[in-house]
Amino acid sequence: MITVLRLGHRRVRDARISTHVGLVARAFGAGKIIYSGEKDEKMIKSVERVVENWGGPFSVAYEKNWRNVIQEFKGDVLNLTMYGEHIDKVVFEIRRSRKDKLIIIGSQKVPKEAYEYATWNVAIGNQPHSELSALCMLLDRLFEGKELKRRFSAARLKIMPQQRGKKVIRLSE
Amino acid sequence: MITVLRLGHRRVRDARISTHVGLVARAFGAGKIIYSGEKDEKMIKSVERVVENWGGPFSVAYEKNWRNVIQEFKGDVLNLTMYGEHIDKVVFEIRRSRKDKLIIIGSQKVPKEAYEYATWNVAIGNQPHSELSALCMLLDRLFEGKELKRRFSAARLKIMPQQRGKKVIRLSE
Repeated sequence: MITVLRLGHRRVRDARISTHVGLVARAFGAGKIIYSGEKDEKMIKSVERVVENWGGPFSVAYEKNWRNVIQEFKGDVLNLTMYGEHIDKVVFEIRRSRKDKLIIIGSQKVPKEAYEYATWNVAIGNQPHSELSALCMLLDRLFEGKELKRRFSAARLKIMPQQRGKKVIRLSE
Repeated sequence: MITVLRLGHRRVRDARISTHVGLVARAFGAGKIIYSGEKDEKMIKSVERVVENWGGPFSVAYEKNWRNVIQEFKGDVLNLTMYGEHIDKVVFEIRRSRKDKLIIIGSQKVPKEAYEYATWNVAIGNQPHSELSALCMLLDRLFEGKELKRRFSAARLKIMPQQRGKKVIRLSE
């Protein structure tokens, strides 16, 4: 079971990226996202609406005190940072530990404590890119590509893949 | 050689995500990004600044008429869409064609023509997530993970990966 902890959300500046963080967490196999920073019910609602339509299980929560979330977590803490160890170097070790995982993903500057608390500080390459690409790549490496075959339950909508055009079917509830 | 074409940029709403699209394109092995939609010199400058600091080769351009970009492109056109064919199904075929690639990545709704022009309409799973995760995953699958070892030239800054903390070195020019 993998939980994503999004730090330092800011209502205006981060609304879209934080929503995407939730959708990426769900689509790439995590079971839960916890938002910290400014409380933003509208943003949380938009992630929940995707779960209602496209299925789960996936839960969404808000916690003001992110330090508590980390300290109370039983399992491995992975802090995503471009300054950390290259994913290719640590991925086997991370997979070998079969504990639950908490993935920390910051918005702006991540407090130093996150680096201290982490079991691993992981870099998806050591180049600047995006917290969204970092998150999906880490999940992809942990699940070895199987996350893209994940089946969701209690979905209302399902895509029928097409060479051209769009086809969505509505499932009965 | 891979070029990314970002459609429909909107100055206010998309500034951060479009910047990230440029950084993801560079970090995951593309050689060029072309922005379309609203002209946004500030956003383009911020991507160029990353290239100056962290190296290339990677070029950034703006084109008002994205249809021309696609029509004049010689090679395969890949349109990223959650409605398309699953990446696992088409990736071998895409890799087998050794032509240059143009990857189309939309912001809001992508015009129907993009689906028609495309050699392949590709879905990174058929679930909603983010154009940023879609882009990095497609590049990752095309380069088979080797993109994370890419070496950049003419960089001013370089990260020395650390178990904890941050270490950046300044390279002489």
